[in-house]
Amino acid sequence: MRKYPLLRNPYFDILYYSNDLKIKGGFAKIRQTRAVMTSLSETGRQNFDLSRHSPVLKTFWRKKMKTYRKELWFEVPTRRAFINITPHVEACLGESGIKEGFLLANAMHITASVFINDDESGLHHDYDIWLEKLAPHEPVSGYRHNVGEDNADAHMKRQIMGREVVVAVTKGRLDFGPWEQIFYGEFDGRRKKRVLIKIIGE
Amino acid sequence: MRKYPLLRNPYFDILYYSNDLKIKGGFAKIRQTRAVMTSLSETGRQNFDLSRHSPVLKTFWRKKMKTYRKELWFEVPTRRAFINITPHVEACLGESGIKEGFLLANAMHITASVFINDDESGLHHDYDIWLEKLAPHEPVSGYRHNVGEDNADAHMKRQIMGREVVVAVTKGRLDFGPWEQIFYGEFDGRRKKRVLIKIIGE
Amino acid sequence: MRKYPLLRNPYFDILYYSNDLKIKGGFAKIRQTRAVMTSLSETGRQNFDLSRHSPVLKTFWRKKMKTYRKELWFEVPTRRAFINITPHVEACLGESGIKEGFLLANAMHITASVFINDDESGLHHDYDIWLEKLAPHEPVSGYRHNVGEDNADAHMKRQIMGREVVVAVTKGRLDFGPWEQIFYGEFDGRRKKRVLIKIIGE
Repeated sequence: MRKYPLLRNPYFDILYYSNDLKIKGGFAKIRQTRAVMTSLSETGRQNFDLSRHSPVLKTFWRKKMKTYRKELWFEVPTRRAFINITPHVEACLGESGIKEGFLLANAMHITASVFINDDESGLHHDYDIWLEKLAPHEPVSGYRHNVGEDNADAHMKRQIMGREVVVAVTKGRLDFGPWEQIFYGEFDGRRKKRVLIKIIGE
Repeated sequence: MRKYPLLRNPYFDILYYSNDLKIKGGFAKIRQTRAVMTSLSETGRQNFDLSRHSPVLKTFWRKKMKTYRKELWFEVPTRRAFINITPHVEACLGESGIKEGFLLANAMHITASVFINDDESGLHHDYDIWLEKLAPHEPVSGYRHNVGEDNADAHMKRQIMGREVVVAVTKGRLDFGPWEQIFYGEFDGRRKKRVLIKIIGE
Repeated sequence: MRKYPLLRNPYFDILYYSNDLKIKGGFAKIRQTRAVMTSLSETGRQNFDLSRHSPVLKTFWRKKMKTYRKELWFEVPTRRAFINITPHVEACLGESGIKEGFLLANAMHITASVFINDDESGLHHDYDIWLEKLAPHEPVSGYRHNVGEDNADAHMKRQIMGREVVVAVTKGRLDFGPWEQIFYGEFDGRRKKRVLIKIIGE
């Protein structure tokens, strides 16, 4: 018999021949929520549950590069704090459906940090003392930046701890060593601030 | 009628059926500058303004992963300086045509930094004082590295401020919080040095 | 003559028409190790050395986004050390076959660092003295983290030097400035530890 293609569509990297689905030509539209393809073809509108068709089809639509974006919001009641955001980041990764790629987590504010280290309260206490020693909050007047604000030290603490982390995504998981955990480091809190999660891959 | 494909080409992720364009088979070549396809086919050389054809076609060529690279050159007349390079980076992103992905900006020299913080001159003054306190330039002889050079302190200042930033690209824009700006931090200037911009995505 | 497609397969982004290879329809499977395509088609099982066929074909399978992962293991006999890992990282990049993209190198342990700077022993000596000044190992009891361990200072030294680097990959090479080299920075050695190399691109 004659064979006709389904043209590829913007959502999935799909093209294949119709014998399997008994479609004759036309465009394919796919609703992501359910793996259902609606074909507008010579034989009129048709629906197909793709999950019941050839694995070839399934492989097609994993191929397009995927991207994912989410903002995590925090309001820390104190000036400084360290918050373990690993579970939130893992939830984003799960939502994204991305299996292989890179994940970026960065503070969207310049007096905060995203960093990877140990989830140990003693260490967090030591970090706080240490950062205060390297970039003391007082005297506030010691910083030219502190005109009408008092957070110059937070801009420095953030540079030491870093703005962002890039994490490898492997088999759908954060590709971490034994003790790696992701933290939001707040150095000028008591207001709503954000962390950006961006994931690219497939 | 019989249908023939255009084979896909290396520049764009394009394949589709010819009825729309009345082409019979052959290879497609596309000049990126104008969305014009030249087809070398059984019916000879033909040109098509793709923008006047099916939206399906247009979606095809957004699919290939894109990469972009550019070097930004700086020659700072002083030993140390902070330069806001955000407009240059935004121009690179525009040039790249990449809408979703990651942008890397890194110093290509090991006595300079690329970092994200506030565009506020008071803060930059504070950074300069603070970095000089943590890693003083003098006494030059205090560093074993300073044999025939005097920039050991610059190698340290750069580690505190960081070599690179990775920025999320969303809808063709740098995905920034309210005050984020990208700076080139020079700690051993008075000569030509470079920042690398690399963007991947689609 | 009639033309039939080879359906695309999960390993390579390949679809094209059979006249070139005299295949009539069917699925294509490709063994990555040798560029040999086995076609299960109407004319039965056939093998083709793809490298001897159209360049169009070759361009197809560079299109899928590639990812690569490797762990580099280190056991440093001393507490602290800097090791130039650039040759290992270049070997990974060669293995990956990735020509354009990003390379991530990160310490998988939270008392170690991956950073980019100069391969100069005097500078490494200066770094060691400087980091010890900013985050001294002694007195061990000065850190609340040091309960049953003595590496709190290593958690701090690692934050100054950084966990990771992201390097642009251009034309299959690390896209480096004149003196950039990648180092593993160990601050709590005398045991096996890992660096993760992850590369994405095409």
